[in-house]
Amino acid sequence: MTNDVLTYMHGLGQAARDASRVLASASTAQKNNALLATAQELEQASQSLLAANAKDMAAGRANGLDDAMLDRLELTPKRIEEMIEGLRQVAALPDPIGEIQDMRYVPSGIQLGKMRVPLGVIGIIYESRPNVTVEAASLCLKSGNATILRGGSEAIHSNQAIAECIVRALATTGLPATAVQVVATTDRAAVGALITMPEFVDVIVPRGGKGLIERISREAKVPVIKHLDGVCHVYVDEFADAKKAIRVADNSKTQRYAPCNAMETLLVHSSQTESVLKPLVAIFQEKGVELRGCSRCLEHFADAMQPATEEDWHAEYNAPILAVKILDSLDEAINHINTYSSQHTDSIITENYTHSRTFLTRVDSSSVMINASTRFADGFEYGLGAEIGISTDKLHARGPVGLLGLTSEKYIVFGDGHIRG
Amino acid sequence: MTNDVLTYMHGLGQAARDASRVLASASTAQKNNALLATAQELEQASQSLLAANAKDMAAGRANGLDDAMLDRLELTPKRIEEMIEGLRQVAALPDPIGEIQDMRYVPSGIQLGKMRVPLGVIGIIYESRPNVTVEAASLCLKSGNATILRGGSEAIHSNQAIAECIVRALATTGLPATAVQVVATTDRAAVGALITMPEFVDVIVPRGGKGLIERISREAKVPVIKHLDGVCHVYVDEFADAKKAIRVADNSKTQRYAPCNAMETLLVHSSQTESVLKPLVAIFQEKGVELRGCSRCLEHFADAMQPATEEDWHAEYNAPILAVKILDSLDEAINHINTYSSQHTDSIITENYTHSRTFLTRVDSSSVMINASTRFADGFEYGLGAEIGISTDKLHARGPVGLLGLTSEKYIVFGDGHIRG
Repeated sequence: MTNDVLTYMHGLGQAARDASRVLASASTAQKNNALLATAQELEQASQSLLAANAKDMAAGRANGLDDAMLDRLELTPKRIEEMIEGLRQVAALPDPIGEIQDMRYVPSGIQLGKMRVPLGVIGIIYESRPNVTVEAASLCLKSGNATILRGGSEAIHSNQAIAECIVRALATTGLPATAVQVVATTDRAAVGALITMPEFVDVIVPRGGKGLIERISREAKVPVIKHLDGVCHVYVDEFADAKKAIRVADNSKTQRYAPCNAMETLLVHSSQTESVLKPLVAIFQEKGVELRGCSRCLEHFADAMQPATEEDWHAEYNAPILAVKILDSLDEAINHINTYSSQHTDSIITENYTHSRTFLTRVDSSSVMINASTRFADGFEYGLGAEIGISTDKLHARGPVGLLGLTSEKYIVFGDGHIRG
Repeated sequence: MTNDVLTYMHGLGQAARDASRVLASASTAQKNNALLATAQELEQASQSLLAANAKDMAAGRANGLDDAMLDRLELTPKRIEEMIEGLRQVAALPDPIGEIQDMRYVPSGIQLGKMRVPLGVIGIIYESRPNVTVEAASLCLKSGNATILRGGSEAIHSNQAIAECIVRALATTGLPATAVQVVATTDRAAVGALITMPEFVDVIVPRGGKGLIERISREAKVPVIKHLDGVCHVYVDEFADAKKAIRVADNSKTQRYAPCNAMETLLVHSSQTESVLKPLVAIFQEKGVELRGCSRCLEHFADAMQPATEEDWHAEYNAPILAVKILDSLDEAINHINTYSSQHTDSIITENYTHSRTFLTRVDSSSVMINASTRFADGFEYGLGAEIGISTDKLHARGPVGLLGLTSEKYIVFGDGHIRG
């Protein structure tokens, strides 16, 4: 069986590699037409999508999936509408491929610049969320990449129904039907194959829990654009405007608890204990946020806080829990962040020019903010149009990853018979 | 013993990680001063460098190193001069770190852009060429990265002598002495440790033969910027100017045989057999280049060529040997290149506008050229000032890698108390 899966995956890989050659020089119109045709197919097939999803939901319930998983698995008319709208938005984005930049003459007389090109074949591994199938496929297609999608096995019927729509849409536009392929087996060996065939796959983008991503990173023989965790900080500086500090810290934590860009640790300069931390404690208490404080916090707010342990400084709660620490300098804050942050997003609240510059330079995170909520760290807020994920890597793509993160550049050289002397 | 090496390497790693925090916000002047001070130390220490190198050379001869290896290992007064000159050139390059780009307001009212930052800690693994120690250290230092250098064991005395100069130079400039560390053991376990400690090392740059690089890529748990091979093509199009074609093909092959950007396969449109290939065959014969041709070549030039086998189309000779193929269309040429090229550098010779655009778009290599010698694909020729290597990867850095390839970008956000609604 495993051998069959390997053969099957290599087949998908070869087909994707071949399709990627065609996609790389597909016109913007062809790619947009395929996206809009997919939108139309989804619209027309919405009843059969719902029916396929009902099978997955029934099996999921029978297999005891929890409510959160069932929620992510479910397709509703509204969610299908959102997928369709997403396709139209990606079609409306500018096409990055073929863009030529910085053409300049160098002393030898050749003219030299860079052209933006697709990466080639992208493998996406994700949990049982059928909308990711459409989202990921659309970004890969727009950026001229062939893609192999491997969603969670609980969503197999939904994903296959979506795949049929995409294949029909591709057929109408003259692009290869294998430009987007959805893995049709739930055998786990398919994931192992997908991440170990560098001859066919140029990069893997895993989307899901930290455990999944760590395992894939460890076992992959192909580069991985990964998003591990979001342990985000807000530091209220000695020179913070108290109103802004309260507003931003509150929003960073409570606007939504689950996202990776929500604040998990609040750092407060000791001089702001009364002016900022005290009113914030009241707000968080009212909103039902559990507070875990350092020993100095407990001196002031013993009634409102539990003691924080070493694990709390590392924790990504994604929940109404917040770690709080009082400290005495910008230096201490930066050191805490560079030690415990997951290098996702960290923000300083300050009116001091030098402190803002120091924080900006020394904090080593993918988004570093001044007087702004960490919740802004997101591809849509950043104007990328859409995002395939948020990278916590430093190489290639860092922070929210949009279409550009799915591309590379090649050097191009124009000569007139130039030779090297 | 291996445990000792692990402990030793983790010590270097921790020290490098700590140093990288300081280096990341070091001023341009500090970094340049360190480079110029290193130049001065090398100058003053040239006698002891030559003495240390003499030990390596004696041991190398005793151990039967071949002439090419001994040549790469040797330090001469002229080579020390070149290392010193290289340091001054890197000091003169603009500092990429801290550069802020594209600050723009997005609809929420935050202002958003990107700041260029170092990668952090770079591990360099290379063969027994002491000049690489200085070259790699200087590029890493200028780009604000801490570096751990592991040169070939045959160069251990030379590398330690160079390391002493760098450490003395760093001490005069207030930068951490551990900003540049040269591994002091020849135990091979050190390489294994260096490539498997992602907590301390952000990227590995191996420099050396394909075997070394493949092994490192396979075993590394850290991203690798790698240069595998250079199977470069020149395609003489139906619409080529014969004079330019002859000039460029000759230069691409014979200007130097060893470099990775030298042509290894010549593709000629059948209509150019008499006008271009015939005179080229004469030139190559005169220069002693062994020719291996396809069956159609042999029909025309049986006296001048051996038959090419399938392996010849894959071969990186780095020697006066050339594979030659006659074909009938641009399509055939592009397909041949996308099948056999190592995606390093490929050039078309043509006067046809549409053919030039098609080649540029469809050839998937790190440098794609029109009417120019493949020999131009090089960091110095491209104006990067210096190069740490040529990447055959698509992610992160592609083609000649200069200072920018050793950096990343982070998003920076300026607000005035902005929160997400």
